[in-house]
Amino acid sequence: MNIVLLSGGSGKRLWPLSNDIRSKQFIKIFKTEDGAYESMVQRVYRQLKKVDSEVNITIATSRTQISALHNQLGEGVSISLEPCRRDTFPAIALATAYLHDIQGVSEEESVVVCPVDPYVEEDYFEALKRLGDQADKGEANLVLMGIEPTYPSEKYGYIIPQSKDSVSRVSTFKEKPDAETAKSYISQGALWNGGVFAYKLKYVLNKAHELIDFTDYQDLFSRYGTLEKISFDYAVVEKEKEIQVMRFKGQWKDLGTWNTLTEAMEEASVGEAIMNENCRNVHIINELNVPVLAMGLEDVVISASPEGILVSDKEQSSYIKPFVDRIDQQIMFAEKSWGSFRVLDIEDESLTIKVTLNPGHRMNYHSHRNRNEVWVVISGTGRTIVDGMEQEVCAGDVITMQAGCRHTVVACTELKLIEVQLGKEISVHDKQKFSLEA
Amino acid sequence: MNIVLLSGGSGKRLWPLSNDIRSKQFIKIFKTEDGAYESMVQRVYRQLKKVDSEVNITIATSRTQISALHNQLGEGVSISLEPCRRDTFPAIALATAYLHDIQGVSEEESVVVCPVDPYVEEDYFEALKRLGDQADKGEANLVLMGIEPTYPSEKYGYIIPQSKDSVSRVSTFKEKPDAETAKSYISQGALWNGGVFAYKLKYVLNKAHELIDFTDYQDLFSRYGTLEKISFDYAVVEKEKEIQVMRFKGQWKDLGTWNTLTEAMEEASVGEAIMNENCRNVHIINELNVPVLAMGLEDVVISASPEGILVSDKEQSSYIKPFVDRIDQQIMFAEKSWGSFRVLDIEDESLTIKVTLNPGHRMNYHSHRNRNEVWVVISGTGRTIVDGMEQEVCAGDVITMQAGCRHTVVACTELKLIEVQLGKEISVHDKQKFSLEA
Repeated sequence: MNIVLLSGGSGKRLWPLSNDIRSKQFIKIFKTEDGAYESMVQRVYRQLKKVDSEVNITIATSRTQISALHNQLGEGVSISLEPCRRDTFPAIALATAYLHDIQGVSEEESVVVCPVDPYVEEDYFEALKRLGDQADKGEANLVLMGIEPTYPSEKYGYIIPQSKDSVSRVSTFKEKPDAETAKSYISQGALWNGGVFAYKLKYVLNKAHELIDFTDYQDLFSRYGTLEKISFDYAVVEKEKEIQVMRFKGQWKDLGTWNTLTEAMEEASVGEAIMNENCRNVHIINELNVPVLAMGLEDVVISASPEGILVSDKEQSSYIKPFVDRIDQQIMFAEKSWGSFRVLDIEDESLTIKVTLNPGHRMNYHSHRNRNEVWVVISGTGRTIVDGMEQEVCAGDVITMQAGCRHTVVACTELKLIEVQLGKEISVHDKQKFSLEA
Repeated sequence: MNIVLLSGGSGKRLWPLSNDIRSKQFIKIFKTEDGAYESMVQRVYRQLKKVDSEVNITIATSRTQISALHNQLGEGVSISLEPCRRDTFPAIALATAYLHDIQGVSEEESVVVCPVDPYVEEDYFEALKRLGDQADKGEANLVLMGIEPTYPSEKYGYIIPQSKDSVSRVSTFKEKPDAETAKSYISQGALWNGGVFAYKLKYVLNKAHELIDFTDYQDLFSRYGTLEKISFDYAVVEKEKEIQVMRFKGQWKDLGTWNTLTEAMEEASVGEAIMNENCRNVHIINELNVPVLAMGLEDVVISASPEGILVSDKEQSSYIKPFVDRIDQQIMFAEKSWGSFRVLDIEDESLTIKVTLNPGHRMNYHSHRNRNEVWVVISGTGRTIVDGMEQEVCAGDVITMQAGCRHTVVACTELKLIEVQLGKEISVHDKQKFSLEA
């Protein structure tokens, strides 16, 4: 099976765990059988591999997620990089061209597209396989997955099938309705449109050439920024006559808000948390290294991260976005291609951060115009390179770097250091990168 | 007026703002007219000075509070140091001997004793003056303040006066009753016993000599650890026949729980906090430098400090103690005589802290057996002394200290530094102090 996972925008609706640079699909919140925690993207990736060990997974995403994807799924993960955000039709066209031109997937093979973050069980991935098989048959140009509704949701578009067979022609599509209308749709046998579908590669490749002027993958990639922002539903699905829907009856949850996310948690808390016996339906997700104590609360989610603390009634957590938009704050934690950093202390003329480098990784070789830096290695071993001078370092070693000096650190083992930045104008934008050969 | 303020134990009922080393009276939570925040002890001290600019205030407390008292009230504050905790009778006897032998207060002068942490207005301090004046008259050996009850509380002992006059003989005392009994006491004209009273100095000094074998203040101080733990109420008040009570009708609140403390807050939040429009009776006290966002909560207190995060129904916050007792955690923030420190990062073999030294202050001259340390000065100027070698330091300077090496830093201006401790056995107990002359 060829599958394209769409890994979407950052989103603030799961603040303080998601923010401008950290997307919800990377939050490690699901307990695995061995007691560790995995993220949505790790869970989906693991489930896919389990159901089809031969699966060819490609993740369509933007540059900001590359580091997190590599950290969470390994360096080997196949990524169709979107140079900028251009909605789902350009993204799917680009990923399809990537499969064809870079991976050499045949025009006759089927491709399954689905979001990277549904909360589902194995039967869902079995259904994805059947969706691809159905597309292989060539009875229609597109085969959608229609999810059997469990309630008259106002959050989804609806697909009205021509029959109640497991595979059927699509009669019509309906936009997100109100609850009353949704009820009447459901009584007519309507299904949720979860944005999951399959097609033969050539179908979307031809559509892409029809709608976009390009020669091949590289050409499409280079002109990506000029493409119109348009959704795949609008550009393709709603205009297509040869279209089937395949029913899916299993668990399918969209974990887009704290309310739905906490429903999917195996345990009431992740991280250091204490609740008294008068807490009812309370969930705590605590990423800090100090305890959260909850007493006498009901239907509340508490989430604490280096970015901030949310305490919300679960229902109301859906309305978080405008409040988070008002928070204009320094990013306090970030995963990078080489590891992660966390801000420990902010003063007018200094910034102290903790840097963790993964084994074998290094920062860019870089310098700063307006600040000096001090590194204190606190664990692990590695090499620093400062203005071309190499030095082996281990816990306790101190490296001082004046403004303008080029520097990097290469981790042999996992390496942790405290970095103190000193200067009057400390900014993430004050960074000049160099190649190490220069 | 001579006044002894009893500054009691640490208490965990206001966790995470109070803990083993930080008492509730030092939490800066009350907004002053100029927009700054002051603690209970600062508020009471300021109010006392305002009502009686000549007041002679002595604070009876233990060693753990000396630094916080000096930081919050200045170096000039007069302190009767209890070498260890021995309940209120020994503490009041010691403070009385201190007034007599050290401060030279005459045996005929009156002394007023009250707790350091009532939440009161100016009329209370006016009443304290009248209490002292009444003791001066010598009509009785002890004059208690009887607070007119506002509800049948089960938290206080009751005083039954012989009459409803503003000053009256005491008929009898009653232990903390249940609410029903409290109602019947109140219908008989009973008053709350808030532990506030006045006496002529010689009365308590004589009582002390009666019950304790000692010569003078120094002698009492040196044998303090051998004294019986006994309350002033039990040792003196309940056995005294010559006793009056003076009514007080003004505001008098005991801010011992989050529930009562938040009632006294001028504004709904202290620190970075956002509430949506569906929050009702919510208070946020946030000492962290990241925001707290509260949505759709009712009757809830949220308190976040470097020690942890509390989210509690206000009623239930009274039952916090057993839960906090279960939290066995490194102290993350502390005020010291020389300034303060905050833990920034904890690893197996390193600990990173931020140290703030007040101008003119220094740490003890000390060494550690089992850890190396690195200081990075981030602001201010001062002098380090390392194995006797002095060096002037400013922002950006780095000082490395091997285990065994003696070191200190003296602040000229306010001086802040990042200290990285490195070693396999990092412990607060690994500290040897030296005099700087050695």
